[in-house]
Amino acid sequence: MRQSTLFTKTRREAPSDEVAKNAQLLVRAGYIHKEMAGVYDFLPLGLLTLNKVIGIIREEMNAIGGEEVFLSTLQDPEVWKKSGRWDDEAVDVWFKTQLKNGSELGLGNTHEEALTALMTEHIASYKDLPRYVYQFQNKFRNETRAKSGIMRSREFIMKDLYSFSNDETSHNAFYEKAAAAYERIFERAGIGGKTYRTFASGGSFSKYSHEYQTVCDAGEDTIYIDEAKRLAVNKEVYDDSDVYAATGIDKASLKEARAIEVGNIFTLGTRFSNALGLSYKDAEGKATPVFMGSYGIGPARLMGTVVELMSDDKGLVWPESIAPFAVHLVSLGKDTDEIAQAADALYDDLVNAGVDVLYDDRDLRAGEKFADSDLLGIPTRVVVGKDAAATGQFEVVNRATGEVVKKSRAELLAK
Amino acid sequence: MRQSTLFTKTRREAPSDEVAKNAQLLVRAGYIHKEMAGVYDFLPLGLLTLNKVIGIIREEMNAIGGEEVFLSTLQDPEVWKKSGRWDDEAVDVWFKTQLKNGSELGLGNTHEEALTALMTEHIASYKDLPRYVYQFQNKFRNETRAKSGIMRSREFIMKDLYSFSNDETSHNAFYEKAAAAYERIFERAGIGGKTYRTFASGGSFSKYSHEYQTVCDAGEDTIYIDEAKRLAVNKEVYDDSDVYAATGIDKASLKEARAIEVGNIFTLGTRFSNALGLSYKDAEGKATPVFMGSYGIGPARLMGTVVELMSDDKGLVWPESIAPFAVHLVSLGKDTDEIAQAADALYDDLVNAGVDVLYDDRDLRAGEKFADSDLLGIPTRVVVGKDAAATGQFEVVNRATGEVVKKSRAELLAK
Repeated sequence: MRQSTLFTKTRREAPSDEVAKNAQLLVRAGYIHKEMAGVYDFLPLGLLTLNKVIGIIREEMNAIGGEEVFLSTLQDPEVWKKSGRWDDEAVDVWFKTQLKNGSELGLGNTHEEALTALMTEHIASYKDLPRYVYQFQNKFRNETRAKSGIMRSREFIMKDLYSFSNDETSHNAFYEKAAAAYERIFERAGIGGKTYRTFASGGSFSKYSHEYQTVCDAGEDTIYIDEAKRLAVNKEVYDDSDVYAATGIDKASLKEARAIEVGNIFTLGTRFSNALGLSYKDAEGKATPVFMGSYGIGPARLMGTVVELMSDDKGLVWPESIAPFAVHLVSLGKDTDEIAQAADALYDDLVNAGVDVLYDDRDLRAGEKFADSDLLGIPTRVVVGKDAAATGQFEVVNRATGEVVKKSRAELLAK
Repeated sequence: MRQSTLFTKTRREAPSDEVAKNAQLLVRAGYIHKEMAGVYDFLPLGLLTLNKVIGIIREEMNAIGGEEVFLSTLQDPEVWKKSGRWDDEAVDVWFKTQLKNGSELGLGNTHEEALTALMTEHIASYKDLPRYVYQFQNKFRNETRAKSGIMRSREFIMKDLYSFSNDETSHNAFYEKAAAAYERIFERAGIGGKTYRTFASGGSFSKYSHEYQTVCDAGEDTIYIDEAKRLAVNKEVYDDSDVYAATGIDKASLKEARAIEVGNIFTLGTRFSNALGLSYKDAEGKATPVFMGSYGIGPARLMGTVVELMSDDKGLVWPESIAPFAVHLVSLGKDTDEIAQAADALYDDLVNAGVDVLYDDRDLRAGEKFADSDLLGIPTRVVVGKDAAATGQFEVVNRATGEVVKKSRAELLAK
């Protein structure tokens, strides 16, 4: 893409009302726009990045047998009353609205109720199990405080997968598969090394749930890490002696850290299938409640976490897996001079070779272009200046390390 | 995909509360689920179809220079008060909700206000124009009546593009490009022949807007068609003599028809740029309001229109461009018999050749499988029965025409 056609502009100063580093940098770089507190728009570069994150998650969910759906935001109170979660006392983040006739509707903050009710039409027998159903869908949560940028917003796309198994044993097998998929997702997005499977409080069907917590000072949670086991314990269960008995974690060896919850997996058991009448006939014809689990990741929170962890004082730094473009081609030419012509030719070659390139073809000073390039954080910068036009050797800068090498056109295209 | 793993089931009977043909068939075929009146979930086959429609629209919007964004659903009243559209008297389809502190928010029914306000940060000079910005985003409209299935729902994904031009002349040039893109979209989705560019009422900046109306008895609109010119006039401007003077349409020759509005394009002029302060400095440094247009298509309405037009008494009939799968491979084998083995082998071959195949590997009677296959509406059915396993000649059925031919494996793969 030619940067001259990109509508977003960068800013030197962070907006004064943003306190979170992720929001400050993403707004400055033109990736997002703040609509109001806790509500953000995704602009072209931000949407490309978000969609890369979504693409990784989708691949991993499909690989474990997930089937994708798209459920509605508007929620029917009748379904939520059955599970006891319609009242604001039961769920404190509801946004509610009304039809013209005055009847109340909710905006979905999660989809256990809607999907469980829906599945009663599609699950009847043990032959219909297991099922794994997921979506990328906008959730609405009426947060009192929203100062963490895109890491905690009032409206956000969430990947939520729900598993429907015939019993706890087959549920547990899938739960571990989902855990492994989550670990691949965080690894691919570049935060694997700092992310720990973390024991947190559970519900009526499992003593603990699991969170994926990424160590970061900007996090809202406190965890205690067993580095050797690559496990952690959330503060909320730190004083529960059972967690150490169950896991072999040595409480004395744990290290405290601030962390961001980037995902969670949860055994629901028959809590929702009982409430909403989701049962199946087993091989003997006996009606049995379906055993459920839920598995969530917020792609924007993951994106915000990468910003918090990897950015530097010059701006964003993206791993290639989720960068909006792989290469930032920066021309130092003017109008149609020799340099601009060399840059145009290299741009065409890279695009034809299938490389995702943002091409800074704008008529600006080199210093402004480099500052913008640093701020945007595309992993590899290729500079076309006077030397390059003359020698055919292009300066290639690694955004993360600052390393500079020279490469010929053939070497660039071979990559 | 193996049909044995698809979680959705088909139904013989339409739900009694659905009156629209599109909803009846899509619910029966397991493409959608009705959450409540006017609110639908997209299940795997429905989401695949919807995403094919979205893919076509996205390609055509990118081809005319569109840049994709994703704006928020939650709307700030302050921005809408500036344009005078916050009051329920001005916009009668608002859904509104509240933050914990009691302040009111809206759920976006369109995005002129939010995007125009946003663009003030990115447009300053004539050099920043033109810009074309679009999204696929969930809109919320508090419709009093919602009985048209996915053709008019209270929550629906809309493609809305907004153009920002420096003056009316350059706006008009883009407007015609957008019109041509719309015609390509309807052509590709299989409804081009029945869709007419239709004059409808305009606003303060243009006497007329244009709708794209698809002739169909299930439509809510009445239009008058000039077949030779491939143009039409909406009933709302039929008695306005100016429309005939402006277009050369002969009122006497028009034919009345019911039609579905599948898209609209609208000259906004400076209505929103004036209200929200979106101006640019022209070459002489003079502040000038940006000249805008808006361009909408509802992908689900388009999908519903295809159902209304093309389905038959056996079920859905999709054009290949938006079908969830290109081929429905139906095995008449049992367990692992010779027929099932031949079908498995053909399935693998087709998948490896890059064909999108739904493979009915279920252990059901042939009659049930054929009835399901007709209901699902995948364009090409390939049957693997006893004969095929013995002779290597497969029965190939065209869903739309019913035409049956025999093809060898090599012929199927060559296609």
